[in-house]
Amino acid sequence: MKARVHVTLKPAVLDPQGSAIRKALGSLGFTGVGKVRQGKLIEIELEESEPAAAQAQVEAMCKKLLVNEVIETYRLELDS
Amino acid sequence: MKARVHVTLKPAVLDPQGSAIRKALGSLGFTGVGKVRQGKLIEIELEESEPAAAQAQVEAMCKKLLVNEVIETYRLELDS
Repeated sequence: MKARVHVTLKPAVLDPQGSAIRKALGSLGFTGVGKVRQGKLIEIELEESEPAAAQAQVEAMCKKLLVNEVIETYRLELDS
Repeated sequence: MKARVHVTLKPAVLDPQGSAIRKALGSLGFTGVGKVRQGKLIEIELEESEPAAAQAQVEAMCKKLLVNEVIETYRLELDS
């Protein structure tokens, strides 16, 4: 089973990487670009094949290592 | 319209960040973890509201700035 974790900064947290991308897009001539935010995408292959157990395992990974819950939120996707 | 670009390293490209995460998960006691890959997630707010035009605009952004097509691939998602 494959898990995909999307980690993004909370809306209230400043995102200098996103701002830099926005400015670079502007200087390349792209118009109509609003807010840009950059996050992380972590893909994990798991031996666990039972969806509920896999979800619980990946949530524990997020809380312990992958996500700083003070400034970040995450969204989980599981593919069998 | 909101675009979400998932940028990942091509499968043949070494991913030291992913390997570091995998080792860290192992040392935290998580078992059954296979390959781990880390990519980027870029969220862009666009004024463009027509899906085909928005897709073309974001694809141009990927080719010009967001994605290094030598070592990375990307996947696009559009939300209206």
